[in-house]
Amino acid sequence: MPVYADPTDGLAVPVPLLRTWTAGLLGTVGTPADIAADVADVLVASDRRGIASHGTARLPNYIALVEAGVLDPAARPVRDGGRTALVRFDARNGWGHHASRVAVDWAIEAVADVGAATAVVHNSNHYGIAGWYAMRAAERGLIGISLSNTSPLVAPTRARTAMIGTNPIAIAAPAGRHGSFSLDMATSTVPRGRIEVAARRGEALPVGWAIDADGRPALTPEAALAGALHPLGGEEGTAGYKGYGLGLAVDMLTGVLGGAAFGPNVIGLFSTEAPSDLGQTFIVIDPVAIDEPGAFQARLEGYLDQLVAAPLAPGAPGPVLVPGAPEAAAESRSDDHGVVIDAVHAAGLRKLGERLGLPFPDPTTA
Amino acid sequence: MPVYADPTDGLAVPVPLLRTWTAGLLGTVGTPADIAADVADVLVASDRRGIASHGTARLPNYIALVEAGVLDPAARPVRDGGRTALVRFDARNGWGHHASRVAVDWAIEAVADVGAATAVVHNSNHYGIAGWYAMRAAERGLIGISLSNTSPLVAPTRARTAMIGTNPIAIAAPAGRHGSFSLDMATSTVPRGRIEVAARRGEALPVGWAIDADGRPALTPEAALAGALHPLGGEEGTAGYKGYGLGLAVDMLTGVLGGAAFGPNVIGLFSTEAPSDLGQTFIVIDPVAIDEPGAFQARLEGYLDQLVAAPLAPGAPGPVLVPGAPEAAAESRSDDHGVVIDAVHAAGLRKLGERLGLPFPDPTTA
Repeated sequence: MPVYADPTDGLAVPVPLLRTWTAGLLGTVGTPADIAADVADVLVASDRRGIASHGTARLPNYIALVEAGVLDPAARPVRDGGRTALVRFDARNGWGHHASRVAVDWAIEAVADVGAATAVVHNSNHYGIAGWYAMRAAERGLIGISLSNTSPLVAPTRARTAMIGTNPIAIAAPAGRHGSFSLDMATSTVPRGRIEVAARRGEALPVGWAIDADGRPALTPEAALAGALHPLGGEEGTAGYKGYGLGLAVDMLTGVLGGAAFGPNVIGLFSTEAPSDLGQTFIVIDPVAIDEPGAFQARLEGYLDQLVAAPLAPGAPGPVLVPGAPEAAAESRSDDHGVVIDAVHAAGLRKLGERLGLPFPDPTTA
Repeated sequence: MPVYADPTDGLAVPVPLLRTWTAGLLGTVGTPADIAADVADVLVASDRRGIASHGTARLPNYIALVEAGVLDPAARPVRDGGRTALVRFDARNGWGHHASRVAVDWAIEAVADVGAATAVVHNSNHYGIAGWYAMRAAERGLIGISLSNTSPLVAPTRARTAMIGTNPIAIAAPAGRHGSFSLDMATSTVPRGRIEVAARRGEALPVGWAIDADGRPALTPEAALAGALHPLGGEEGTAGYKGYGLGLAVDMLTGVLGGAAFGPNVIGLFSTEAPSDLGQTFIVIDPVAIDEPGAFQARLEGYLDQLVAAPLAPGAPGPVLVPGAPEAAAESRSDDHGVVIDAVHAAGLRKLGERLGLPFPDPTTA
């Protein structure tokens, strides 16, 4: 996920304040406290990690889903089938964050017996950053994989129109002194939010990010926003079909496997026309099932040591990065100095708080 | 995997003839018949599917490993740890194809009880095309995932030197009238073999395929062969760090998890200096554990129907493809008309057959 630079004129909000207010706000629209805590944890984690596009800035959209009656804020997931190492949960059209937290926790508990476990969620909603669920496993010494399908924004290789989501893949594992290895990536070259940032900045786009409404390379953000994203790899000549295949595989392992919506049948992002019926899948693996405790982490730590010490290409903007390291650095900054939110983000939260009777606190006086 | 066009002046070898001779040849260097049958199946499957780079053309390299004493042709894998849904196999430095077939078959059997199962192989050797093992699951109505680490050929984003393998990801599933969905991809933009083809053809390279020995974009095949491959996505600006992260994740789920070699510590492709100690991982998921029989296939079939009917971008060389469809078409041609091998490939097999006392049969008189 792209880590955006903190806005220079932003408002620094202490993490506990943001989390408590977010959970409270979700309560005002009928979310039970334990479910609201899960949703707030995931959204604030996104803000803390510098992924402003997926955090509390989306609260107005989420609340709109509840108020339109297309997301049930009080629904609790139920297990509806499976065997000892593969189960399905019906999210019953509740909060995706909560159903997914329940599902990954099931897998985290199950691996003690079975070694590796997979939980599939259907009838779900957006679950925030994919990485949160993978890292939840990594924090317990396990390997976590988190997948979700999403609204169609990506054109398959050769196609002119968007038919597949940006379907993220997140993989995390404990990595000793490197903290976690935490890959969290959309299977498009860039997320749609990155195009919107380019539009605000008046940037031209490189070939490989997107196509226009006619299916030709989009060289301006405006053309791209009227068209579709390229899968990872870009055009066919630079292996965009691999990103297309990966995005399709994620859909197959989530929506198709779980019996949720998939591909072009998923409704638009935060559309209030109907429930989303998204699918999410979590795979958790316990390295200790096949090796001595600590052995896996030690090997991964040593590998990452080798990578960050690699000789650099000319013009490299910095050392080789461990996946997730920029996000971890942002998280540390946020926990020390607060989450820095921009003026539009702050205004959105204030407006929401006023309307729902839970004013957004002024961090300078809190 | 790139499907190469059949050579126009090639030799058509009937599939049963090629398989029988290959298995026999492996027997001459001490491979028990059942193990030789597995290796021959996988190598000939690659040839049948048009992936000439990974099939019987590599027999001279494989035999050299046996003759150098760095691959034990008679070794049988042993299970050395695990729980009901995650086990590890020690390939004991035998044929990677056989150990991997045993491992994926364990997972295929295990899912009847547990729903999803993972097998990790260490102390292994090259296993041919990753897709073979995933398709073995798909042929039984299951979802199969096959991963392997390989010799370092890919430079991490920002690095000047190769430190990670082209570490393939293969995912297959049954897809009704579409046969199988079968994604089988290196996590580099292109495999090294594609650069070698460009060298033979005198082609220039696009930015995003490779870097030269100094870490700059390689614009000729010669520069690329002296340098390193780019991960999928190419340069940092087109999200090459995602391909880097995926390649690293594959290594983490195979070599690092299994306790095999990983990253820059893996020896060169077909080096006879020491055993390879590669790692492979197989994840098998039974959709019937969470849904009615046939329901998953029917959904996937419908999804693929939608994709192949998508409106096309200008200049598209053909319809949107289902991953694995070009390979399946090549397989059908091979089964009807024989595997067409080029003159260098044929000469290599003839020379090997003569030396080992099992002459390569003349298909025109066989």
